[in-house]
Amino acid sequence: MSGGGIVWLTGLSGAGKSTLATALAARLGAHRPVEVLDGDEVRRYVSAGLGFSREDRDTNVQRIAYVARLLAKHGVLVLVAAISPYADTRAAVQALSADAGHPFVEIFVDAPLATVTARDVKGLYARARAHPEDMPHFTGVSDPYEPPAAPAVTVHTDREPLAASAQRIVDALVARGLVAPG
Amino acid sequence: MSGGGIVWLTGLSGAGKSTLATALAARLGAHRPVEVLDGDEVRRYVSAGLGFSREDRDTNVQRIAYVARLLAKHGVLVLVAAISPYADTRAAVQALSADAGHPFVEIFVDAPLATVTARDVKGLYARARAHPEDMPHFTGVSDPYEPPAAPAVTVHTDREPLAASAQRIVDALVARGLVAPG
Repeated sequence: MSGGGIVWLTGLSGAGKSTLATALAARLGAHRPVEVLDGDEVRRYVSAGLGFSREDRDTNVQRIAYVARLLAKHGVLVLVAAISPYADTRAAVQALSADAGHPFVEIFVDAPLATVTARDVKGLYARARAHPEDMPHFTGVSDPYEPPAAPAVTVHTDREPLAASAQRIVDALVARGLVAPG
Repeated sequence: MSGGGIVWLTGLSGAGKSTLATALAARLGAHRPVEVLDGDEVRRYVSAGLGFSREDRDTNVQRIAYVARLLAKHGVLVLVAAISPYADTRAAVQALSADAGHPFVEIFVDAPLATVTARDVKGLYARARAHPEDMPHFTGVSDPYEPPAAPAVTVHTDREPLAASAQRIVDALVARGLVAPG
């Protein structure tokens, strides 16, 4: 059995992080313990009341990472799907994961802003543009997204089928001993 | 291997919840996956900024319970040590645990207020009495503690050795199939 670890999917809202995490969990869950921590969902449970300022986002990301470490400690491969827009915050949670002895695999779910704005699955981009006063910290519109400098894998959800993206991530996890080959 | 579950130790500050949880983890950890979620510690990670009003306490307890359910889902026996003073909040997290299919074992760590005030390991009772304006919601002094009506086990840490209390809890866990006998 493979040990625990954290797979951290970062990218713009609507880039396809949750879809990828769910697809990976469906594919890997039969072979090893897996848990998806979806940023929106975890926020409801552990960060209700927090907003989207830099400080509040960082707090939320740190809380997700705390839960992820607890699960990884017990052998779970945790698939985190969270915008997590700030590079140094991601570096900080990666360092805490390393300190705890858990592999941390950063995945950049890259879709151009034009694509996610056109998709706008949740209607948030339209709202952020139409009513910036309601959403003063919307990543990619009124708040920065800092792409990973050296992600383990970059997937281009605008021009690569989901299965192909998932396969490249699985390959990276196999290479790191987090998923058994074959 | 036994499945996951939640052992919820409730009681006044200083009653001995964390000590008991640590002792149980040391005893059971060699035989099955175990994790201690200490209320004070979890609060630092997922509830920094929350205070001790009823609403904030409830939020903190619900967050601990969310983390506990995630761990129990992956086969961990979670030992929660949290004052959790309100009976209906404990009932609510017990119901959520049952909905998720996890056994929930309520343990009342009972020590008289006079005893915990005399011990006052953290110096909090003295402070709560001397400066009530600093600690307007201190359980047992300026905020209620509602004892469990039907706990699985009640331990009297003022008149029972730690090992004996731990043994009675282990017996209850064995009876519920959460710990292998012997």
